[in-house]
Amino acid sequence: MKRGFGSDNHSGFSPEVLEALQAANSGHDLAYGDDELTVRLRGAIKDTFGQQAEVYPVFNGTGANVLCIDAMCRSHEAVVCAETAHINVDECGAPQRVVGCRLLTVDTPDGKLTPDLVRTRLHGFGFEHHSQPKAISISQPTELGTLYTLQEIQALAALAHGHGMYLHVDGARLANAAVALGCTFRQMTTDCGVDALSLGGTKNGLIMGECCVLLNPALDVDMKYRRKQMTQLGSKMRFVSAQMLCYLESGMWKRNAEHSNRMAQLLRKEVERIEGVSIVYPVQANSVFAQLPREVWHRLQQRYFFYDWDEDRDVVRWMCSFDTQESDIEGFVNALKEELCRQ
Amino acid sequence: MKRGFGSDNHSGFSPEVLEALQAANSGHDLAYGDDELTVRLRGAIKDTFGQQAEVYPVFNGTGANVLCIDAMCRSHEAVVCAETAHINVDECGAPQRVVGCRLLTVDTPDGKLTPDLVRTRLHGFGFEHHSQPKAISISQPTELGTLYTLQEIQALAALAHGHGMYLHVDGARLANAAVALGCTFRQMTTDCGVDALSLGGTKNGLIMGECCVLLNPALDVDMKYRRKQMTQLGSKMRFVSAQMLCYLESGMWKRNAEHSNRMAQLLRKEVERIEGVSIVYPVQANSVFAQLPREVWHRLQQRYFFYDWDEDRDVVRWMCSFDTQESDIEGFVNALKEELCRQ
Amino acid sequence: MKRGFGSDNHSGFSPEVLEALQAANSGHDLAYGDDELTVRLRGAIKDTFGQQAEVYPVFNGTGANVLCIDAMCRSHEAVVCAETAHINVDECGAPQRVVGCRLLTVDTPDGKLTPDLVRTRLHGFGFEHHSQPKAISISQPTELGTLYTLQEIQALAALAHGHGMYLHVDGARLANAAVALGCTFRQMTTDCGVDALSLGGTKNGLIMGECCVLLNPALDVDMKYRRKQMTQLGSKMRFVSAQMLCYLESGMWKRNAEHSNRMAQLLRKEVERIEGVSIVYPVQANSVFAQLPREVWHRLQQRYFFYDWDEDRDVVRWMCSFDTQESDIEGFVNALKEELCRQ
Amino acid sequence: MKRGFGSDNHSGFSPEVLEALQAANSGHDLAYGDDELTVRLRGAIKDTFGQQAEVYPVFNGTGANVLCIDAMCRSHEAVVCAETAHINVDECGAPQRVVGCRLLTVDTPDGKLTPDLVRTRLHGFGFEHHSQPKAISISQPTELGTLYTLQEIQALAALAHGHGMYLHVDGARLANAAVALGCTFRQMTTDCGVDALSLGGTKNGLIMGECCVLLNPALDVDMKYRRKQMTQLGSKMRFVSAQMLCYLESGMWKRNAEHSNRMAQLLRKEVERIEGVSIVYPVQANSVFAQLPREVWHRLQQRYFFYDWDEDRDVVRWMCSFDTQESDIEGFVNALKEELCRQ
Repeated sequence: MKRGFGSDNHSGFSPEVLEALQAANSGHDLAYGDDELTVRLRGAIKDTFGQQAEVYPVFNGTGANVLCIDAMCRSHEAVVCAETAHINVDECGAPQRVVGCRLLTVDTPDGKLTPDLVRTRLHGFGFEHHSQPKAISISQPTELGTLYTLQEIQALAALAHGHGMYLHVDGARLANAAVALGCTFRQMTTDCGVDALSLGGTKNGLIMGECCVLLNPALDVDMKYRRKQMTQLGSKMRFVSAQMLCYLESGMWKRNAEHSNRMAQLLRKEVERIEGVSIVYPVQANSVFAQLPREVWHRLQQRYFFYDWDEDRDVVRWMCSFDTQESDIEGFVNALKEELCRQ
Repeated sequence: MKRGFGSDNHSGFSPEVLEALQAANSGHDLAYGDDELTVRLRGAIKDTFGQQAEVYPVFNGTGANVLCIDAMCRSHEAVVCAETAHINVDECGAPQRVVGCRLLTVDTPDGKLTPDLVRTRLHGFGFEHHSQPKAISISQPTELGTLYTLQEIQALAALAHGHGMYLHVDGARLANAAVALGCTFRQMTTDCGVDALSLGGTKNGLIMGECCVLLNPALDVDMKYRRKQMTQLGSKMRFVSAQMLCYLESGMWKRNAEHSNRMAQLLRKEVERIEGVSIVYPVQANSVFAQLPREVWHRLQQRYFFYDWDEDRDVVRWMCSFDTQESDIEGFVNALKEELCRQ
Repeated sequence: MKRGFGSDNHSGFSPEVLEALQAANSGHDLAYGDDELTVRLRGAIKDTFGQQAEVYPVFNGTGANVLCIDAMCRSHEAVVCAETAHINVDECGAPQRVVGCRLLTVDTPDGKLTPDLVRTRLHGFGFEHHSQPKAISISQPTELGTLYTLQEIQALAALAHGHGMYLHVDGARLANAAVALGCTFRQMTTDCGVDALSLGGTKNGLIMGECCVLLNPALDVDMKYRRKQMTQLGSKMRFVSAQMLCYLESGMWKRNAEHSNRMAQLLRKEVERIEGVSIVYPVQANSVFAQLPREVWHRLQQRYFFYDWDEDRDVVRWMCSFDTQESDIEGFVNALKEELCRQ
Repeated sequence: MKRGFGSDNHSGFSPEVLEALQAANSGHDLAYGDDELTVRLRGAIKDTFGQQAEVYPVFNGTGANVLCIDAMCRSHEAVVCAETAHINVDECGAPQRVVGCRLLTVDTPDGKLTPDLVRTRLHGFGFEHHSQPKAISISQPTELGTLYTLQEIQALAALAHGHGMYLHVDGARLANAAVALGCTFRQMTTDCGVDALSLGGTKNGLIMGECCVLLNPALDVDMKYRRKQMTQLGSKMRFVSAQMLCYLESGMWKRNAEHSNRMAQLLRKEVERIEGVSIVYPVQANSVFAQLPREVWHRLQQRYFFYDWDEDRDVVRWMCSFDTQESDIEGFVNALKEELCRQ
């Protein structure tokens, strides 16, 4: 396939991951997470997020999200999230099927919930006809490439806790957010009052590896059974844990995220200079959302792979990755200019 | 962890798998199974099982089993299986939670269903108070290390089809069965009338990789959505497909299974000579189930890792793997003899 | 409890229902719907809706709605409905838990879907990350007391069928709609292309009795098992069927609905003359939604029972019932005037 | 339909039920259980079962059972029950679909669990691959018409509580048990340590009415939402509560159960004298299970309605009801004798 800006999932993996797998491939070890590397990962997660943090490695982002929701909500409860949230739009109804709960969605201008937006869904408490709001879920960065500040996360956590609710962060690209905000994972989650976190690695250079991280110990009930029953318990878990350990301990999460964020900024700068294209959301992580004439992006898609995001508004998404190169940006920007001229 | 006979999941992976991953790690490719390697895997599965075969790569055995059950049954229907079946005993109720269906279990002497045993559960058709039997599920080899002959599989398929039902094979260790029976995967499945197959790779040398293989095209309805919704769709699927391709095309499946089966036979032969230990099921694949005095296996577990299987009957399971060495067997047998003498 | 305008569920039942129960209480009959009265009900439903109509009596409206959704959708599919729909707001997530599917909601000005509004949710067909739109569900009359014309229903059915989807009508108050539109049940459903109907009786004078009516024979697959498994199969079903037969055959549905609609019109006329109160939705069935100063409706609630509908907008709901009397209206209007004067 | 011994569900209802409905049919009252009669029912249940008892009226026995299971178990947990239990055999997998949990079944000689039988399923605690045993469910009387003594119930409760588990009683015919044992409902449940009870009324003379009764306050968490979400919340609940109040307060439960039990004893005595027929389970409540030549019961079914129970063993079930008359028994016994002579 031709290179492009389709998704950070279109990239392969960072070479250090293979080394980690090779190093982990010695002798026998217990299956299903009782192995030495998963034990070490538990420690690394505590070092990263605080001693009360508990980690449940899973296979993919949907698994991490659904397991987090399952920890927070029973089926008669509900999660407040943005209409654009991955759990709402892109998981084919997995929370509904696996947890059986409702999502209470809110339209947002930029993919970000605010306390005022959330409050529009906080009613009917105690009324048995209504699903009971029990969690707020945000994506950091959002599906639109925007970021919550630490203060904004704190405010949402305070709102949640004030209603006996939990705050979940879908951190499929959490590293990109941390790098952009110049903060640690812990500052952005535990210290803000986040209760549950989907910690992603796959989009940022792993082969496969995500974690459900519970920051609020009250949520850590029967989770090992729940993970198993929803099909997300891996047998040779040491090879997921090895990747995630490498990710956290080698600085790979930071290197890769810094790179992809920088590439997005480079792309943004170049595009901003071009007439006929407008950037529609603040570029804060590793994606650029642009509006441009349909014929132009249709032709451009013949040369570089990327997805349209909102056909009605002629908005497309350009996603940078840890393996995006400056030459990719350069070539792409040139192609974009050429196609604009051909109108 | 000390080496032992705990599980084929306690082994690492074969070196060729790492090479396959490295080779797959070039450039960009589509996510979620639209990549070139997954397309190639589809072809390889058709070459292996017949042109009508369709493959859905998933993360683990529970995922493959639940997806197969989901293809065969709706929630008001039921799967007939052995009481000892992995789907019944070892998946924490995943079929019940994810599919919502019942399992109709049958006690067996050796882990194997027979048409007569299955018939004891085939009643109540058309009666709305009873879950409707819709599938038979067998494990090949069984959880007790025993094998179905091709004729036995055919007979179960005929029984199933005669009642408008399907036959599923849990093939977490299918390679061990094929090697033991001296037949191809296809002869043991498609040609016997099997409708759906969980094709395992992880226990036989992969890092992680299993497939739901639908051999009956009537079952291939909406499966891509069902896989996604039950959280089993991998983003960088090319790295699962790369492993499975390597498994099928390099002969690795056969090499590894031949080895582990041979190790089990070696262990059996040595153990048969030892007084005070009896082997309780025919050793036909890569596991040996033995009965011996409790104090002996308790002491032996201090030296080699393995699991007790049935504490009430003092039966333990010794599982050989692709990385079991003759010296492992030798050392273990000596240790066993020593512990028997110490009584 | 003091009388009021809280809900048509606050009324008792019409006297003819008791006679029907008494008449049905003779001798033995089969349970679970194989009885003579349920057989007769099947005929009456065919006479009412057309020969292809199949009826599944259930206990309550949520049961009827969930069974209809279960007939139309599997868990990876979705139902497009108004944000205000009962299935979305007032069933505590029953469709999500029992069917496991998503609801795709649309904001509406008056509780009514239009083809244009529905089309905003008709995308992502074939894309496995998105729940697949499979049904449109409307309430007739809507939860806001408004009505679809026959043409509007036809248009939605055509849109649904054009996308391989189904049209469901939540007819908890279908009789009120039929009376208001001056049409038969059949003209409003079967003849418009409706595929599945929740036919209500409880709100219009029965003790308890609703039906899932399938108008599209393609939907009538395995329904008896599905109803049983979701707990909606009644043992002495003859006593539900007896009520529903009485409802359809005695003209009770019409008498009661005509009365409650007329009471709503009477209330509307009186209220329209009063300054300080405005009616916010067209009064087309048996409910009146009014906006008035908060202190007024708070004081009024001390004298007559009714519910606030939208606290933010100071909108309340006044529901008329088959047992609402002209004197109720008169007293209520007087009380309203008094409370308005006390400001 | 001709009279017979098919089911206590084939009878109509006792006349006092109609009076209760009529008395309840006055004025307005709140829906969904906030009405005066349901409030009174709560008191009556506390009077009957103890002050900590909480009642959730539902529509049918499956609803009561599933709601009780939902109170006791999450989806990764399991209920130990007899293979013959109604929840296992006759609810089309409702617990699996609605709760998502497993049932761990035990073969029994007479439909009764014993501590020893239950213990065979109490293993794997803490092992995430196994559904965790969390409840024991017994039917009193059993589906085979046999009874637990108070001591036997106490022993099962003690076993359950010793393992952090709960004891549930499916009391679809609890009145027949209480009458037979000469004890109160409370002595048989609360005082024995029962945690949750499905209290039946329909089979013993109501039109429709069952209750989930929680005797252990620890189980009473979020139940109103759970009932609603599983479709078991009735709108005009006062008419279910009116029936149940009448049932408890008028002595109807006792009168009807005494009668049907006496009819079963009469039938037993007559049948015991007849050669060629043997009674296969102790007749302790209102059913008689008999073994007799197949041709005989086939011919007898032409004259009286009843169900075969186990075709393989030529066992049939004769169920007496509150409306069974001595003349029914007499006629039936004569017919049985005639058909036996015709062999």
